[in-house]
Amino acid sequence: MNYKIPLRDIRFVTQELLDSPTHYSKFTKGQAADPDTVEAIFQEAAKFCENELAPLNQSGDEEGCHFEDGVVTTPKGFKEKYDDFVANGWPSLCGPTEFGGQGMPESIGLIMMEMMISTNHSWSMYPGLSSGAIKTIYTHANDNIKGRFMPPMVEGKWTGTMCLTEPHCGSDLGLLKTYAEVDASSEEDGAYVLSGSKIFISSGEHDLADNIVHIVLARLPDAPEGIRGISLFVVPKFEVNQDGSLGERNGVSCGSIEEKMGIHGNSTCVINFDSAKGYLISQPHKGMRAMFTFINESRLGVAMHGQAHTSVSFQKALAYAKDREQFQAAKRVNPDRPADPIIHHADVRRMLLTQKAFAEGGRMLNMFCGQQVDIEQSPDFSAEEHAQAEALLAILTPIAKGFLSETSMEATNYGIQILGGHGFIKEWGMEQEVRDARISQLYEGTTGIQGLDLLGRKILKTKGAAIAPLMEMFDDFIGENRWNKNARRFKKYFKKWKSLTRSTGFKVMRGGMDELNAAAVEYLMVGGYVTLGYFWSRAAIVAEEAIESGKGDAEFYQAKIEMANFYYERIMPRVESMIESIGNGSESLMSMDVERFVFLDD
Amino acid sequence: MNYKIPLRDIRFVTQELLDSPTHYSKFTKGQAADPDTVEAIFQEAAKFCENELAPLNQSGDEEGCHFEDGVVTTPKGFKEKYDDFVANGWPSLCGPTEFGGQGMPESIGLIMMEMMISTNHSWSMYPGLSSGAIKTIYTHANDNIKGRFMPPMVEGKWTGTMCLTEPHCGSDLGLLKTYAEVDASSEEDGAYVLSGSKIFISSGEHDLADNIVHIVLARLPDAPEGIRGISLFVVPKFEVNQDGSLGERNGVSCGSIEEKMGIHGNSTCVINFDSAKGYLISQPHKGMRAMFTFINESRLGVAMHGQAHTSVSFQKALAYAKDREQFQAAKRVNPDRPADPIIHHADVRRMLLTQKAFAEGGRMLNMFCGQQVDIEQSPDFSAEEHAQAEALLAILTPIAKGFLSETSMEATNYGIQILGGHGFIKEWGMEQEVRDARISQLYEGTTGIQGLDLLGRKILKTKGAAIAPLMEMFDDFIGENRWNKNARRFKKYFKKWKSLTRSTGFKVMRGGMDELNAAAVEYLMVGGYVTLGYFWSRAAIVAEEAIESGKGDAEFYQAKIEMANFYYERIMPRVESMIESIGNGSESLMSMDVERFVFLDD
Repeated sequence: MNYKIPLRDIRFVTQELLDSPTHYSKFTKGQAADPDTVEAIFQEAAKFCENELAPLNQSGDEEGCHFEDGVVTTPKGFKEKYDDFVANGWPSLCGPTEFGGQGMPESIGLIMMEMMISTNHSWSMYPGLSSGAIKTIYTHANDNIKGRFMPPMVEGKWTGTMCLTEPHCGSDLGLLKTYAEVDASSEEDGAYVLSGSKIFISSGEHDLADNIVHIVLARLPDAPEGIRGISLFVVPKFEVNQDGSLGERNGVSCGSIEEKMGIHGNSTCVINFDSAKGYLISQPHKGMRAMFTFINESRLGVAMHGQAHTSVSFQKALAYAKDREQFQAAKRVNPDRPADPIIHHADVRRMLLTQKAFAEGGRMLNMFCGQQVDIEQSPDFSAEEHAQAEALLAILTPIAKGFLSETSMEATNYGIQILGGHGFIKEWGMEQEVRDARISQLYEGTTGIQGLDLLGRKILKTKGAAIAPLMEMFDDFIGENRWNKNARRFKKYFKKWKSLTRSTGFKVMRGGMDELNAAAVEYLMVGGYVTLGYFWSRAAIVAEEAIESGKGDAEFYQAKIEMANFYYERIMPRVESMIESIGNGSESLMSMDVERFVFLDD
Repeated sequence: MNYKIPLRDIRFVTQELLDSPTHYSKFTKGQAADPDTVEAIFQEAAKFCENELAPLNQSGDEEGCHFEDGVVTTPKGFKEKYDDFVANGWPSLCGPTEFGGQGMPESIGLIMMEMMISTNHSWSMYPGLSSGAIKTIYTHANDNIKGRFMPPMVEGKWTGTMCLTEPHCGSDLGLLKTYAEVDASSEEDGAYVLSGSKIFISSGEHDLADNIVHIVLARLPDAPEGIRGISLFVVPKFEVNQDGSLGERNGVSCGSIEEKMGIHGNSTCVINFDSAKGYLISQPHKGMRAMFTFINESRLGVAMHGQAHTSVSFQKALAYAKDREQFQAAKRVNPDRPADPIIHHADVRRMLLTQKAFAEGGRMLNMFCGQQVDIEQSPDFSAEEHAQAEALLAILTPIAKGFLSETSMEATNYGIQILGGHGFIKEWGMEQEVRDARISQLYEGTTGIQGLDLLGRKILKTKGAAIAPLMEMFDDFIGENRWNKNARRFKKYFKKWKSLTRSTGFKVMRGGMDELNAAAVEYLMVGGYVTLGYFWSRAAIVAEEAIESGKGDAEFYQAKIEMANFYYERIMPRVESMIESIGNGSESLMSMDVERFVFLDD
């Protein structure tokens, strides 16, 4: 079966749960997003994704990318669809109008991104990386660079990448060695030459675009050691003349592409910089801070990767479960046949509903974040509103990235499990969801890194100040729905999270980094479960009100209420174990001597 | 790095924890397994697996099996190594002496099986399936069939398969359609002709052996409907003359092989029976009962698949974690270098120790089961001893299969996670462990089926009688170690499991199949965590005694004690959430109407 973009649910989340019409009415950019336009965009985007991208998903996986003499060829059909994508103006949807963009709010682009990932993760990463590169240049480069690079990037004729990782440094970017020196041959301000080697560069080299613009972390000669000595550069594959036309091939080459577990249709490249010309953007040695424009956007993108795979796996497993007849249900459905569809067995429902809880719950979380990005980026909001949106994103980005990528592994594996042996066979496409989703726990910072970011850098370092706005939002919700069952349920677990935050804080104050590191991932997961609980409670309350108001579509709303029940009864209890495990601290993790982990004969 | 068979740990588990010398002294077959012989077998088996099988693991995954005109060719090197394996007498290790076997106890064969799976899962399945086929024929066939089929199968010249699944029936074998009629052309007693199509037949066709002997479930013309109308047949690829020589090609053909997520080196076949000659074994319509000889052995084999992948992933991730330097540890280890090995970070340890807990804990559970198989199969034990071994296996087989396969998914995914981006790259081999391990939750009955078998068929159907011997063994252990911390810890969780068993029993009595189905998988997992807790407690107590006795190797024993600490502090709390989730019952699973699971636009 083919995946269908769940437009009804997207409408529920954006319009009913998050009241997007009111949201968009509050800022200039948003005013372009009137309901009819938004609906037209959703319809067309869904059509493009379902009809053009989805058919290349499995074939792209089978074929993979090709590498020969530094040239990367994407799987059959990828370039054609990318040309259509550009011709139809999709890349510029949310681009700034002064550079040819259509100026739609970011939140619309994020919904489009969910659609593209769910129908073809590998393909979606070519425009996906561009989007972050565009934003980074727009935010941090000077007008000259912007004028030369932005228009073709916004149009989609050129794509972008982010170049961070090196062979000896992944998470710990402070160790990076790629270096940049002033380009003595150039009269241009900010012109440098870069040398070094980057690995794991997604969309690093390919045949879709006329030029590829690398956003590169490197060290200047006078750089301090570590993470505080890193600068940010724009380095194009082809040099770009002052009039914006393409110049000579730059000293940038693709050394090889990786054979990977999944996302075979996306090129993961070794990119070598050999006296490549580039341009410093933002301040010297302040590159990491600027790169976070890119990293934060990408982390939300990865949250969407997790959620999208969960959604696809759910929909396909559901179709199978309705069709496949094995064993008789407790209440017979097909009394005239020897067996009933497996969806009538409780254990299959347990898996399907868990997928649904994460798919639709994750969508609520991601689209909520999308609205915060809109607020953060629009000058029409007050400083206070900006600060609140930033604070919410600071906490919710690592939660969404870590939690939705981790749960996507569980959910897509259920997709296999529901199909039984057929799930393990390539033909059905369920195992590809697992393989493609698996990268989401790794790139843009592993779950461990997200946990440290959340608990260490965000919450504990600010003594809880960073999480206060989220807690306030939760408290407000509880206050406003004091007598509602779903708000009361949420309150119980929210209190547990608050108390865990306090107790873990004390533990880290006493025990330092080891305690932080020992708690971080489970703490993040508790935060994820509780945050999703908030959204499921909100969804149930919105649904109750819709049913009461008699606006129709009662079955749809009833399902939301039932899902909240399922979530609190069968999913939320998971936090109990994690709270207990965190409470037991780091000692049993740290006591074992390195040499005692394994004993092997010589 | 290459995987090294953890012989020190295997010795600990067999000799120290399970006192194999005493065990083997108790029965005739066991007396061949004197310590020196056993050690020599372990050494040679480890050498064969490390030096011959491991080098073909990755290449076999890349190349996969080939299919052309009904002929299957295994990956390069597979046949050669199989010939060596036969030439060195390995297949006959545990075979019955009257058919050319060496008569070693089954428990020795299971250890050899762990070694083979861990170094090459795909390859191990060719001899692996044979072993079950041999046992089934030996147990259920008449002397004529045994005389013709056993010798070359025991020698390894012929291999075996199990043919259960059909396109429309996997878990629900009652639906199967393959049929058998008396072979009117044959004068032989029990000769039939079979027609039908079987899918997912592992090792169903290949180039390693002269003949392939299929153990096939099919219906006789007068068969009652459903699971009570299934009979069991032996159907060879080449007919077998009365003198045991090969006759004509039988009506058995391979229609195709599957493209799969993993175990690419093993052929997963569609096997078509087209008036194929076969022989009824065991009684008409009692085939399922006889097939359980094969199924139970295979389920223990799959438990070993899970455990073996966990062990490999652990060892390889450990090597990486000791080598890879990222970030500075709380207590610096390399003060002269910019970063410390990641094994010094608590979160990496959390993942490594979880792998270790399942790898070594699973080994204890599996090898304990191996001893019970020895007892069950030896006539030297009393009826009471037989009954006890059978009862222990009845409960521990679904637990070991379900729990160790489920935890292998978590553990092998940690293997990827510890390597970061490198874990996702094929070169490092970590992602292959995930892909190869994934089948273990599916074949020989999904985790859901194991849960139903454990909680429904075994525990509740017998009103708890089936689990009594295990509970008694646990009680005895607690009684014997009343003042020991590790026994007391275990007692706490054992009580929780007992109470869960009671409360779930009541729930099922009231609510029927839906309650059973809603609880089954989480119930199995609780059983798995508690059972592994028992083994970790036992291991810690054995280790404490070893340290007290001053027998040396204190570091090794200290590690066991520390692992038990880790297990109870960071792993065992998981049962709390599952107990709570089960306690919330089936209502939230069953209430949603099938049509409400998803709402898609037309």
